[in-house]
Amino acid sequence: MLKEKFNVAVVGATGAVGQAIVQILEERNFPIDELRLLASKNSVGKVVMFKGEGVTVQEANTDAFKGIDIALFSAGGSVSKALAPAAVKSGAIVVDNTSAYRMDANVPLIVPEVNIERAKDHNGIIANPNCSTIQMVVALKPILDKWGIKRIIVSTYQAVSGSGVKAVQELKNQSQAILEGKTDFPKEILPVGSLPKHYPIAFNAIPQIDVFEDNGYTKEEMKMVNETMKIFEDDSIQVTPTAVRIPVVNGHSESVYVETKESFTMDEVVAALSNFKGLQVVDQLEEQEYPMPAVIDGQLDVFVGRIRKDLYNDKGINMWVVADNLLKGAAWNAVQIAEYLTKTEEVWNKK
Amino acid sequence: MLKEKFNVAVVGATGAVGQAIVQILEERNFPIDELRLLASKNSVGKVVMFKGEGVTVQEANTDAFKGIDIALFSAGGSVSKALAPAAVKSGAIVVDNTSAYRMDANVPLIVPEVNIERAKDHNGIIANPNCSTIQMVVALKPILDKWGIKRIIVSTYQAVSGSGVKAVQELKNQSQAILEGKTDFPKEILPVGSLPKHYPIAFNAIPQIDVFEDNGYTKEEMKMVNETMKIFEDDSIQVTPTAVRIPVVNGHSESVYVETKESFTMDEVVAALSNFKGLQVVDQLEEQEYPMPAVIDGQLDVFVGRIRKDLYNDKGINMWVVADNLLKGAAWNAVQIAEYLTKTEEVWNKK
Repeated sequence: MLKEKFNVAVVGATGAVGQAIVQILEERNFPIDELRLLASKNSVGKVVMFKGEGVTVQEANTDAFKGIDIALFSAGGSVSKALAPAAVKSGAIVVDNTSAYRMDANVPLIVPEVNIERAKDHNGIIANPNCSTIQMVVALKPILDKWGIKRIIVSTYQAVSGSGVKAVQELKNQSQAILEGKTDFPKEILPVGSLPKHYPIAFNAIPQIDVFEDNGYTKEEMKMVNETMKIFEDDSIQVTPTAVRIPVVNGHSESVYVETKESFTMDEVVAALSNFKGLQVVDQLEEQEYPMPAVIDGQLDVFVGRIRKDLYNDKGINMWVVADNLLKGAAWNAVQIAEYLTKTEEVWNKK
Repeated sequence: MLKEKFNVAVVGATGAVGQAIVQILEERNFPIDELRLLASKNSVGKVVMFKGEGVTVQEANTDAFKGIDIALFSAGGSVSKALAPAAVKSGAIVVDNTSAYRMDANVPLIVPEVNIERAKDHNGIIANPNCSTIQMVVALKPILDKWGIKRIIVSTYQAVSGSGVKAVQELKNQSQAILEGKTDFPKEILPVGSLPKHYPIAFNAIPQIDVFEDNGYTKEEMKMVNETMKIFEDDSIQVTPTAVRIPVVNGHSESVYVETKESFTMDEVVAALSNFKGLQVVDQLEEQEYPMPAVIDGQLDVFVGRIRKDLYNDKGINMWVVADNLLKGAAWNAVQIAEYLTKTEEVWNKK
């Protein structure tokens, strides 16, 4: 029988996504017995507020998961690789927000609006897709279901919050320096902290997110390719991505061109998108209504606008997809999966 | 016989593009006899420096073009409509940077790297294309020449300078206000000054540039469609555009997917782009080298990077195209045309 309350661990509790997870757990009134906040040694002893009470951060290590039912990981791929198996061994189901296990054939890759039933196939770990993939597949799922999808050509406009709290601070510091007329200021985080070259993101656009792979695409771009095929369970779907960082604090936008297999009318497309749970259509051109990252910041849903037929291809649709990358792109998607776990006896029978 | 020096008028001399034109005329040591700076009544009497001397701005009206050989217009479409015919009647050749005459069948639409010979077909007026079109067709021309082009899917990342000096100030003011934690600040210019709704551009992305047309595309997007067909003299080229304003001061970027008619190798494509005059390839991934708007600001050429084959279509190429929208996208393209006029006797024989 299902428990009424669960012991929940948040690994990476002091990071941008971890903080958002704690906030959503509170807002959603998640059925929590114990909330255990875990992080690296540097953050041990910090106090995070949850439902009016302070929770002290403990060290994330292999012994930290005793009694935990659900462990939400967002402390980087290496931490997940090191600790997720221990959490599973302790009896927890892991919802992992890193790229560590996403393409593992034994790990379901879940966007609840798209394929939540697949969570039942878990072997202890369930993976959360990359932010840029999540919002795109939510917007595409109703199109896939009704008309099939042949190919997708997508250009992203990604916020700096996806690179963490320090990247947000870097954008703000650089913006202030440039407004004061300075030409020399620190550039340390973007595009990729661990790589030798860093460029200003303030008042700039950087066509690199994550490292380059041998085929000339970035790892971020290849995530969109591979994760989309896995989530839609269709290796024939062609995704051509260009991932770009722009000076937005929070909220990713995507210019998406999609070619369907079957014919449609635009009224049917708009109806399908409008009726899809988790997706909000904001598309009143005469009122200048369309989604924008600075406006949807803090909201849980995916927003779509500028929905229009291709000028040439009767099976081509263009649209503009915006979501809060920290929430739907990470924390909220993970908590959605966790909420499903709390309501689904079947997922626990495997333990 | 060709003159050695020319009387040149700049209409809209105090605007963002007009100022850039005056600066380039000086830098290029343009063969000028008299430089006449014209603007609306509000700017009459202002003094603009040219080669160390002050030039007083005069009123732009139908009588202002006596003796002028070349008139460079960038004061808005309505001013061009009102005054360009008078300038032509006075004996000038007009290079018009507005959209007033671009699609006029009697007016050549010129990007010098692409179709400068067509300038000879003028009937007094030569049109400068829209900024977002210019940089795209420069990057596509070497591909068109060698392999033909079937279709283009382009998403733009456009700077605020394209909306004028006031839009740049608005971006800076809004950025400062947000950095100071203010949530209420003026929004007056973007996305379209004359429309009722205005949104913040600071730390945001706005998927509207210019007004919407009945087909759901913006006027900016349809300029890319129609001007590309006219410049390439090929109505079969399919352009699918999404035009987006981002918080960059100056420099437009474009994510361009192009499908060719004939097969190529990527080495051939990179060589063709590298050898094309006016185009600079910046594409060393192992060195993290690619074009960015904040870096190429102030340069005359078009820059292209992230050149890579589509993952599926053997005739598909993705690339990232960046240019200074005030220079190559407007002022420099106009001065390039004017330089051609100073060297080409044939264009004057029509007068």
